[in-house]
Amino acid sequence: MTSPLETISQPSRVADADEAVGYDELGLAARNHGMLLEAMRYDVTPLGLHYLLTHYDVPMIDPQLWRLEVGGLVERAVSLSLDDVRARPSVTHRVTMECAGNGRARLVPRPVSQPWLHEAVGTMEWTGTPLGPLLREAGLGATATDVVFTGSDHGVERGTEQDYQRGMSLDDALGDDVLLAYECNGVPLPPQHGFPLRLLVPGWYGMASVKWLRSIELVDAPFEGYQQNAYRLRQEPGERGEGLTRIAPRALVVPPGSPDFMSRRRFLAAGEHVLEGRAWSGWGEVVSVEVTTDGGPTWRAADLEPASGRYSWRRWTVPWTAEPGLHQVSARASDETGRCQPLEQPWNRGGFANTSPQRVEVLALDRS
Amino acid sequence: MTSPLETISQPSRVADADEAVGYDELGLAARNHGMLLEAMRYDVTPLGLHYLLTHYDVPMIDPQLWRLEVGGLVERAVSLSLDDVRARPSVTHRVTMECAGNGRARLVPRPVSQPWLHEAVGTMEWTGTPLGPLLREAGLGATATDVVFTGSDHGVERGTEQDYQRGMSLDDALGDDVLLAYECNGVPLPPQHGFPLRLLVPGWYGMASVKWLRSIELVDAPFEGYQQNAYRLRQEPGERGEGLTRIAPRALVVPPGSPDFMSRRRFLAAGEHVLEGRAWSGWGEVVSVEVTTDGGPTWRAADLEPASGRYSWRRWTVPWTAEPGLHQVSARASDETGRCQPLEQPWNRGGFANTSPQRVEVLALDRS
Repeated sequence: MTSPLETISQPSRVADADEAVGYDELGLAARNHGMLLEAMRYDVTPLGLHYLLTHYDVPMIDPQLWRLEVGGLVERAVSLSLDDVRARPSVTHRVTMECAGNGRARLVPRPVSQPWLHEAVGTMEWTGTPLGPLLREAGLGATATDVVFTGSDHGVERGTEQDYQRGMSLDDALGDDVLLAYECNGVPLPPQHGFPLRLLVPGWYGMASVKWLRSIELVDAPFEGYQQNAYRLRQEPGERGEGLTRIAPRALVVPPGSPDFMSRRRFLAAGEHVLEGRAWSGWGEVVSVEVTTDGGPTWRAADLEPASGRYSWRRWTVPWTAEPGLHQVSARASDETGRCQPLEQPWNRGGFANTSPQRVEVLALDRS
Repeated sequence: MTSPLETISQPSRVADADEAVGYDELGLAARNHGMLLEAMRYDVTPLGLHYLLTHYDVPMIDPQLWRLEVGGLVERAVSLSLDDVRARPSVTHRVTMECAGNGRARLVPRPVSQPWLHEAVGTMEWTGTPLGPLLREAGLGATATDVVFTGSDHGVERGTEQDYQRGMSLDDALGDDVLLAYECNGVPLPPQHGFPLRLLVPGWYGMASVKWLRSIELVDAPFEGYQQNAYRLRQEPGERGEGLTRIAPRALVVPPGSPDFMSRRRFLAAGEHVLEGRAWSGWGEVVSVEVTTDGGPTWRAADLEPASGRYSWRRWTVPWTAEPGLHQVSARASDETGRCQPLEQPWNRGGFANTSPQRVEVLALDRS
């Protein structure tokens, strides 16, 4: 039996070997947006420049009517207004967030979905109340092992109608830094970032940080809903695969000099420059960034500035004497857990956790 | 003689008949962003949802060092700090702005540039000081006929290295509503909207509203710079063509119901609904919006709400009884000057002033 929704919603697929970007992918690219890479010059990404991925539509929520329901395997179900949430103890974390599908558009073959190149990242200051104490106050049921978070955004995806939902182990949900966030960069969440309240899971890919949060439910088994199944690393459709959690280490270069409008290739005057960029990892502190200006044979260690927060990117710099001609600039990061950014990206069907180095073409001009 | 910049910057071109969207176009789509169409539910587009097109990079400007220079054919050249500008009389205008290239990606053949579908629009409240009085205080030179506005954004475009510059006749620049804007939606301009100061020309396509403004120069002939030449309606490359100025009338539909993630096609329960959207024109008040739900044969007049400003879009609604099945929803506008939104879009090489109706596919489901 087929659902009528299958007339508008198709299964996930991988593009044919020579299949160009389609209008469905372009439609997602026009809607969702990456961070302008030059905005990596800011420690904190200004509002409107942070990447944004919305699976369905941004819901318009009346904060007076909105409630957060906490239920399931708790001793006392709780229903909170926005004022109730804001009256609780608050903390602010500076967090680098990245979309799990960042870099997907350059994979061969290309998973057909939001076609990110390199820009699905950003760092904002998120203010909210820690989740753990709220769950403990509600009373953790003896059999509770997992938590399901439900947003108000509704749609169909690969044939499955749903509100956006994600699960997490109770242990992870009780982690020190997991927040119910109602502000970013010092202002109430804008609609597109989850107004009035979102989950914020520092260090994890963005899919975990459920926006427009309306319900938290404690359950006694791992959540097996659509999004839990979608965000997995697999080679074949039928495979179980490994679920995505924390952000793999990655470095990006602030494109140096000035751009060409159409190609985004760069130019600058030959001579002394300082290359800069950012590097991050959700697994631990970034301890090394290497930079090449010759497209790979030669790598040099960059200088790392201190991180401005446990979950915030680190700025790096490296001096560069640019000889006249065309150069190819890339950077790669490794973290304190020994995880490194690979030069060649292992492929997976969802196009997730792609960290293949950005390649910036820079033309140095003799302007003496 | 060729410039070395030609190795990174190619002439403008039109795609081959069957040429798919390329990675250069995708790169622009990932960087620049449209308005999420559901954000048309807001009278004023929340910060971060307004469309954004940046030709080069967003420059990082120190407001303490920044000056606005007013010179050329004036009696007294003027140099203003940001505090000087902010100390002048201020006004706030609610303005609908649209990119001249909105809709370009669906043209056949497709001009290869920023590949907008329908979403390069937004309405914000811009606060600043009127330009006219400032120019008059500087003293209009007897021979001054035109004004050149220069931004701080620098790059190369189709082989021409430049700071972004646009000209305008002195008559137009002295128009009542032309602003030097330093705030939008009540906050200082974010970097991406022109911090610390931009020109704002209500009713005109966005290319006129020079961001990161640093210089205003009165001259005695129409400006013939790169951008003045680029934003023209032409069929052939060599043609002079007509320069773009005001925004052609256009209506857009808030996509009803809920979306499919990938295709953005919609679904809702069959039955009674209210379709809504926005309509605008830079030439005069929108006086009529017609809506079809059957892909064209039948059009009905929508109800128009009063405009909330001379340059702001009007909200429209129309009741709709959706029978089960697939529907195609479109809207079209006409304004008080008699300008109408054509059903078939006349083609031009730049892909400008495209107003062909958006087509929203909506599946109504029998859920009784």
